[in-house]
Amino acid sequence: MITVNFNEDQHLYLQIVDEVIRQIAQGHLKSGDQLPSRRALADHLKVSLNTVINAYDQLTDEGYIVPRERSGYYVDLLEIDMLPSEEIETKSLKHEHSKISEASQYTNDFHFANRDMSTLNPKQLLQYAPEALARSVVNCNLKDDLGALSLRLAIANYLRKYRGVMTSADNIIITGGHTASLQTLFALLEDAIYALEDPGYYKNLDLFTDYQQKTIRIPIDKYGFSVKDLETTSANIVITTPNHQFPTGIIMGMRRRQRLLKWAYQAENRYIIENDYYNEFRLKGRPVPALTSLDDQERVILLGAFRQSMGSIFKMSYLVLPDQLMKKFHQAKLKTSDISSFEQYLMTDFLNSAHFPKYINSLRTNYRRKEKAVLAALNQSQLPLTIKEAGAGLFFIINIEGEIPPADVIQTRLAENKIRLQPVNHYAKLKNQFDQSYILGYGGLELDEIDQAIQALVTIFK
Amino acid sequence: MITVNFNEDQHLYLQIVDEVIRQIAQGHLKSGDQLPSRRALADHLKVSLNTVINAYDQLTDEGYIVPRERSGYYVDLLEIDMLPSEEIETKSLKHEHSKISEASQYTNDFHFANRDMSTLNPKQLLQYAPEALARSVVNCNLKDDLGALSLRLAIANYLRKYRGVMTSADNIIITGGHTASLQTLFALLEDAIYALEDPGYYKNLDLFTDYQQKTIRIPIDKYGFSVKDLETTSANIVITTPNHQFPTGIIMGMRRRQRLLKWAYQAENRYIIENDYYNEFRLKGRPVPALTSLDDQERVILLGAFRQSMGSIFKMSYLVLPDQLMKKFHQAKLKTSDISSFEQYLMTDFLNSAHFPKYINSLRTNYRRKEKAVLAALNQSQLPLTIKEAGAGLFFIINIEGEIPPADVIQTRLAENKIRLQPVNHYAKLKNQFDQSYILGYGGLELDEIDQAIQALVTIFK
Repeated sequence: MITVNFNEDQHLYLQIVDEVIRQIAQGHLKSGDQLPSRRALADHLKVSLNTVINAYDQLTDEGYIVPRERSGYYVDLLEIDMLPSEEIETKSLKHEHSKISEASQYTNDFHFANRDMSTLNPKQLLQYAPEALARSVVNCNLKDDLGALSLRLAIANYLRKYRGVMTSADNIIITGGHTASLQTLFALLEDAIYALEDPGYYKNLDLFTDYQQKTIRIPIDKYGFSVKDLETTSANIVITTPNHQFPTGIIMGMRRRQRLLKWAYQAENRYIIENDYYNEFRLKGRPVPALTSLDDQERVILLGAFRQSMGSIFKMSYLVLPDQLMKKFHQAKLKTSDISSFEQYLMTDFLNSAHFPKYINSLRTNYRRKEKAVLAALNQSQLPLTIKEAGAGLFFIINIEGEIPPADVIQTRLAENKIRLQPVNHYAKLKNQFDQSYILGYGGLELDEIDQAIQALVTIFK
Repeated sequence: MITVNFNEDQHLYLQIVDEVIRQIAQGHLKSGDQLPSRRALADHLKVSLNTVINAYDQLTDEGYIVPRERSGYYVDLLEIDMLPSEEIETKSLKHEHSKISEASQYTNDFHFANRDMSTLNPKQLLQYAPEALARSVVNCNLKDDLGALSLRLAIANYLRKYRGVMTSADNIIITGGHTASLQTLFALLEDAIYALEDPGYYKNLDLFTDYQQKTIRIPIDKYGFSVKDLETTSANIVITTPNHQFPTGIIMGMRRRQRLLKWAYQAENRYIIENDYYNEFRLKGRPVPALTSLDDQERVILLGAFRQSMGSIFKMSYLVLPDQLMKKFHQAKLKTSDISSFEQYLMTDFLNSAHFPKYINSLRTNYRRKEKAVLAALNQSQLPLTIKEAGAGLFFIINIEGEIPPADVIQTRLAENKIRLQPVNHYAKLKNQFDQSYILGYGGLELDEIDQAIQALVTIFK
């Protein structure tokens, strides 16, 4: 008979369930054994019939016992050594003390993607949180295949104001991030041969190369993406960063932009994907309008996000698609997926507010100050170098002049001194003129650390 | 000469920039024309030399003019008809009035994924927002290849408490959502032949089928996924929903679980992907422990998310990987991508709080009430039907007995009456016994609408 020493902390029926499982696991109840009738067990345990009914139902649902009509409940044919045992509770905790540390492993980190978001006033963003959450709850069953309409309207407005791009919410798709944007594009652009900038940033793209069509690398000359080289290839889709070429920082000039657009207009299946990752961000002068703003034949796709303003706080991205690709998107019944509604609504309100441009300005002021300090420190160091495209963003290229140790020696020294500084060629596959060029990012440095950081850096090249 | 009627609302240098662009676009300044010297223009316009320097720098950066050493600035070789014109400002606003409506198109919507999140107390969640945002800002340059450590610790704890799964933060990867989870798995599981449940939910999977290896459909019998059928195939990866088979709601019993595990243990490259989409959610009894909790040979991968609790508010998902797959993940230098840090930290605090289990209980109580009302209304309607797996979640299967109109007639009637009710076979490719079975979801119905909604539904089958 099944006996249970009931305690008061847990439902009675669950204690019966656990006892039966224990007896099966220990071999006291064997496969095919009949359980006491529900009435008999209730009498024996001095509990209500309902309690036993609930226990037997749960055991049946979990598949320990099987009811047979007019005959009662029987233990199912089970493997005792594959049943959950109480040992499991302690067994698998081998990893309990996670060895992962969240601290940065670099003493001086010049990574280009490092940011400083300390000028964000949390209250200015969070004042919109209650309303954003309320809308998320009310709209929880809403299916919007393109992302939240309110955010798409806010982005259309933002693009008009800051990027010179005239589009509508109907042509905007919100995605979960850059990878998801690329995935959507790959689904839309069939038989694509991609022309990529070299050097260029294609980590996300590499995710897809297994499944993907051919890619061709196009060199960067002093005006940016070399359309002349593009014209000799069979590529039909260009992926480019015209407003701040990564990593060289080169802005594609009007003449080159016109030549690139003309290339696209020459054949039906040609498109340009403009990765506008720098958005309106620029430390000097006014932001350069997006290439998309010049396109009057609907051949440029804009790939955008809020990384310069929101960093990793909000990672959603967006696509601006020409009409014919939007049509294809709807025809193929594609949907965007996996963008949390709360962050969409919160970003909407912040983007629409007067706080947003002020926040962007505060970022620019802060980074400008840092860049100035870095340039002064480099100047004082008397390391012979040329600086390219300062003022364009959060990093610039330094090209070390004269004879320096070979690249692998430099790498070893950097590692030994816990300095992170990436060579431009880390992002290149083609032979080029960037052999002594490095990407110097200063976004993550504290203003009062800069002198010392640059001093540490300079010794590496001596 | 360039003349500008300055206004006070804008930087002087930007007004010079705009005027030069206008003169180029209108043909007054032609390709190759020399611009006035910076000094001469400053004198002419009565502005400081610096203002003109800034203007010429901006025009150079945007590629309208080109400096020649010791000779001044010249208009670059440009196509006038491809320059941005002021017309553009109004031209492309054709889509201004977006035709997209956010309202549901159904009068009675029985979709299985509809939820009711009205029992979420916004304050209980948002009290953690300031702290979560502060952490996001401070950690903005942190690269955690697996997702936020604090959230992974919280999930490990949650899985132990509610899913019987013993794992560590080291074995958990946070992803942007279900699609991203699948993408990560596809990158890890090479040469996979996937065995899928039929009927089953594979919309996300369809995204990948172009690039993907073979898939085989396995029928669902009354105990769930038919391992007997699986054993006759060449599949090596199973994707299954053992705790609430979609859409049948069948719970895979212990005996079937053991047989499935044994299948996996028979060959090196076999894995089971447990899609635990229902988590601890269940309206009656205790939650059924995850299949992963039985696995002592590291062959089950758990795919989880917070959809039952957070709906579309937070869409991040997670993977629990066996050691050898984690090792492979690190060796391949894979990284998770595109999960906003703010939502990770906010979910961490909510998940760790005492509010979370209480909130889950409030959801269960609310849905239980709705299910009861639906069952009562169906009972009263006297439509001959059998109900399968009520109490398991937010929906159950109704199988209409006797003769009813053909499926396409039913579909037309449903559409005419703006009712959304999906047949089980919508999710099936194999021939099966679900011809008169429908998925009745009640999560999105208001309690006081239920009687009328069921009445409207019942007439469809008469």
